Amino acid sequence: MANSKYEYVKSFEQSDALLPHTWIVIRVDGRGFTRFAQVHGFQKPNDEQALHLMNECATAVLEDIPDICFGYGVSDEYSFVLRKNSTLFQRRASKLVSIVVSLFSATYVMKWGRYFPGTEMQYAPSFDGRAVCYPSDTILRDYLSWRQVDCHVNNQYNTCYWSLVHSGCSPAEAQNVIKGTLADFKNELLHTRFGINYNDLPAIFRKGSLVFKRKDENIVKVENGVPIKRQKTMVVVSHEDLIKDSFWKENPSILGSANSKKANLRSAALTEKDAETSAFKNGSEMMMEVHS
Amino acid sequence: MANSKYEYVKSFEQSDALLPHTWIVIRVDGRGFTRFAQVHGFQKPNDEQALHLMNECATAVLEDIPDICFGYGVSDEYSFVLRKNSTLFQRRASKLVSIVVSLFSATYVMKWGRYFPGTEMQYAPSFDGRAVCYPSDTILRDYLSWRQVDCHVNNQYNTCYWSLVHSGCSPAEAQNVIKGTLADFKNELLHTRFGINYNDLPAIFRKGSLVFKRKDENIVKVENGVPIKRQKTMVVVSHEDLIKDSFWKENPSILGSANSKKANLRSAALTEKDAETSAFKNGSEMMMEVHS
Amino acid sequence: MANSKYEYVKSFEQSDALLPHTWIVIRVDGRGFTRFAQVHGFQKPNDEQALHLMNECATAVLEDIPDICFGYGVSDEYSFVLRKNSTLFQRRASKLVSIVVSLFSATYVMKWGRYFPGTEMQYAPSFDGRAVCYPSDTILRDYLSWRQVDCHVNNQYNTCYWSLVHSGCSPAEAQNVIKGTLADFKNELLHTRFGINYNDLPAIFRKGSLVFKRKDENIVKVENGVPIKRQKTMVVVSHEDLIKDSFWKENPSILGSANSKKANLRSAALTEKDAETSAFKNGSEMMMEVHS
Amino acid sequence: MANSKYEYVKSFEQSDALLPHTWIVIRVDGRGFTRFAQVHGFQKPNDEQALHLMNECATAVLEDIPDICFGYGVSDEYSFVLRKNSTLFQRRASKLVSIVVSLFSATYVMKWGRYFPGTEMQYAPSFDGRAVCYPSDTILRDYLSWRQVDCHVNNQYNTCYWSLVHSGCSPAEAQNVIKGTLADFKNELLHTRFGINYNDLPAIFRKGSLVFKRKDENIVKVENGVPIKRQKTMVVVSHEDLIKDSFWKENPSILGSANSKKANLRSAALTEKDAETSAFKNGSEMMMEVHS
Repeated sequence: MANSKYEYVKSFEQSDALLPHTWIVIRVDGRGFTRFAQVHGFQKPNDEQALHLMNECATAVLEDIPDICFGYGVSDEYSFVLRKNSTLFQRRASKLVSIVVSLFSATYVMKWGRYFPGTEMQYAPSFDGRAVCYPSDTILRDYLSWRQVDCHVNNQYNTCYWSLVHSGCSPAEAQNVIKGTLADFKNELLHTRFGINYNDLPAIFRKGSLVFKRKDENIVKVENGVPIKRQKTMVVVSHEDLIKDSFWKENPSILGSANSKKANLRSAALTEKDAETSAFKNGSEMMMEVHS
Repeated sequence: MANSKYEYVKSFEQSDALLPHTWIVIRVDGRGFTRFAQVHGFQKPNDEQALHLMNECATAVLEDIPDICFGYGVSDEYSFVLRKNSTLFQRRASKLVSIVVSLFSATYVMKWGRYFPGTEMQYAPSFDGRAVCYPSDTILRDYLSWRQVDCHVNNQYNTCYWSLVHSGCSPAEAQNVIKGTLADFKNELLHTRFGINYNDLPAIFRKGSLVFKRKDENIVKVENGVPIKRQKTMVVVSHEDLIKDSFWKENPSILGSANSKKANLRSAALTEKDAETSAFKNGSEMMMEVHS
Repeated sequence: MANSKYEYVKSFEQSDALLPHTWIVIRVDGRGFTRFAQVHGFQKPNDEQALHLMNECATAVLEDIPDICFGYGVSDEYSFVLRKNSTLFQRRASKLVSIVVSLFSATYVMKWGRYFPGTEMQYAPSFDGRAVCYPSDTILRDYLSWRQVDCHVNNQYNTCYWSLVHSGCSPAEAQNVIKGTLADFKNELLHTRFGINYNDLPAIFRKGSLVFKRKDENIVKVENGVPIKRQKTMVVVSHEDLIKDSFWKENPSILGSANSKKANLRSAALTEKDAETSAFKNGSEMMMEVHS
Repeated sequence: MANSKYEYVKSFEQSDALLPHTWIVIRVDGRGFTRFAQVHGFQKPNDEQALHLMNECATAVLEDIPDICFGYGVSDEYSFVLRKNSTLFQRRASKLVSIVVSLFSATYVMKWGRYFPGTEMQYAPSFDGRAVCYPSDTILRDYLSWRQVDCHVNNQYNTCYWSLVHSGCSPAEAQNVIKGTLADFKNELLHTRFGINYNDLPAIFRKGSLVFKRKDENIVKVENGVPIKRQKTMVVVSHEDLIKDSFWKENPSILGSANSKKANLRSAALTEKDAETSAFKNGSEMMMEVHS
């Protein structure tokens, strides 16, 4: 509204629009969560309630921002995938990153009591974020595979480490036992010393969490013998392998629709200006049902 | 820890480091706050409790991030000034923006109950953020002046508009009365029709909120007749004019220390790598006392 | 060598590395070439010698920079395609753009005499440049098609315009005749009024110029009845349709090798640091034979 | 002109506008000039003709681009300073860098014969370029001082090295003699062994070359006893110290006019769109007289 002589300062804003027609991954990372976990008594090596809270936050992000088609979470980090052809916020990096981080952080505090009913939050947690473009489906999947391999390797290490520590080893002793050892050694250690069959551990610890939308058709009512169906888009959370092809073949719509015809890309380019609005309009029209 | 064949995906991250030795302003803006204000019954044209909550969030940001030396807030937005010579997070835009937005958002939810004790939060609020560089003190001050002029102009308009609406006008009628009118007309309208002297309205509405650190020396105790002093850095909130020189002259340390000798700049450049750590180390060592 | 107190100024250089694994198009454009063409008596609507000079410059670029796999030229502009997986100069935009523009400009002056033997160059020509990333083969081909459609449309317009002007019309009259007319009208005009069959015009005017490398096997000598072959990479110039699939099917190696296995991409990422050197080493080892 | 379905590819161009109100330094560097110098028989350690050719190219850049107010050259590199408040090409990095590099390269080839009359150019030289922003006058001057210190240190080293080599040392022997020695040792070596007083060497070798504009008032003619004066802007080349304050005090207009009132900055922001045109219009109206 104001039109003062100071308005020239707006000219210092620089564009940070990300390359069109590439997958954008927005990764959210807990800042100083080692301390946050200690202060709030998270179980080691994994706190299931804390992971469910992270998943609840991720679900809120997918519900709120329709152009985000997938999320993958492990420990105190979450990666969100924005559709290749999205023009949300003109693909401005700081807008995209800040909105996702803000929603995630606010939801974390808001839903805290549901997962830690007896524990008062001692101080506000915070997350940092970044946005990275991946130019092809293959590379996007390699990114997600990278995170899931990381989940597995870290979990195996941490499970050994904390089993040793819980059984009386000092941190230094525990480290010495497992430092530089291979996966087989760690599995053997868990089995012979602690009776743990690694593959029997909960999938949420071993595989991390996948969050995505699924369309379901429900019969709402029957009128004159004709079933009236209604399609709902639900956000679902699962804990499965995303490295192999099978997950992506069973859920072709996740990466699928962005790959459509060239025509779409061209029309996307033409309608860029309307994108912000329409994205959110779609959002509010979309029927959602939260998991759980 | 993991060193998989997928790690090449890290090479897709692109640098977003902001130009050294420029003031960085990180502006946080409420997303969809018109609706958030309605749903939660904020008073119009200004809700004092909501503004105090914003100020509490800003205080948390200044306490947590020592390199942020000033904040200015109005309505549902807040601008934070990062020192010119800061090398926090290597000045990466997405890191800086996301940490500030995250802290702000999480604190907003966490402290909600203190300012709206009877009102349950209906859904998580969110804020977007951006970072802009300003190369000189003059331009930085022009930026802040721009925001304070905006505060004034918007507040004058909104005070008229809501006075009319509260007195029975329809929104369209209210708009018609004030559209395109000058400041004097609006002041006159408020005075003659509603008995409001604009300059008597609370400064927090007219001037917005300034948040900054102030060093205070307190006598902690007296030993053998000698007073033992201790310096504390307090975050204070005020509602004064920041366009005129007087505020900056009375508080020379806010923009001051960054302007020191060239030597500092050069040494800053050399020690860049240690910056992230040291910033936070300073942070935790700094004695803080929250306003209020 | 020098290690002065001023070296901190190097920290102000900001990264402008372009997104990995995307096609980079570097477009070179004549600056003020309308005037340059007039001063040097270029023929209108097309000066064949000037186009051959442009092609000579483009050939020099492809010979010098092995990672550039294709060039397309029309009028006073040339687009160069850098391989998707190139890590030349760490993909820094200013390095890539400046080297190409510099080589192009220097060659233009150096080879001028070969194409304009009687004409002294009045002043140094200059070109601007830019680099744009295209994330997929389809979009890269759309880019090139865009330039070739542009070539066609402009050439048709200019051929009409200059035919009218050469036949006595004033510029304004000529413009009036053809403004807003369709392709068919223009073809008809050329045919009936000037006896020109548009499709019989030289392909270099209608299609622009394609510059690329082709491997040829030659028998160098015969030893003991055994032919000794040697593979040469030649830079060739052609003037054909690049919008249809046929050109790309007949020359699969142009875009081809970059699409190889994922493995390559990963290894490319790992060896990035050696890239600059190796690119040029390859370059000097590569056998080249200039067209013409 | 053409408006094809392929035009969406234009949306892939990303902004590379540099921060307003900062000094932009565009540095041009010879690519592979060690070899170019050898092939064309440049004298060692300094070839005066080659330096004069570089200065001629720099002069051409200052004459062509009015917003460039200063150049500093040493060996095969040249740094150009664009005015703080320039809005030329909307401050787009690739445009600025490419135009300067292109002009420089084309002029180098065009003027070659003037400085190397008997020597045919064997192949086209090329230069790379980059643009860096400096937010204050002090830092800009530190940048220029950095280059001049570099000039001095390199020249001292090279003068010793080549004196030793010319007197019969092998390259390895020469290196051994001077490696790691201080300035005094090198001066002493030059003096006692080769009778060279370092400070008597030509200033162009010791100080590099400064290129800038100077306004001169000349009496053009006398009418009725009244002298008619005319102001000319000349590009001059000098070889003096730029580290001390004296040069800048004697030539206040070089950095001066950009520092003017805030008002200018604000108006610059408002008229940004007209900048490209007006800059060049000024350019052609400006009276220039080349040095020498």
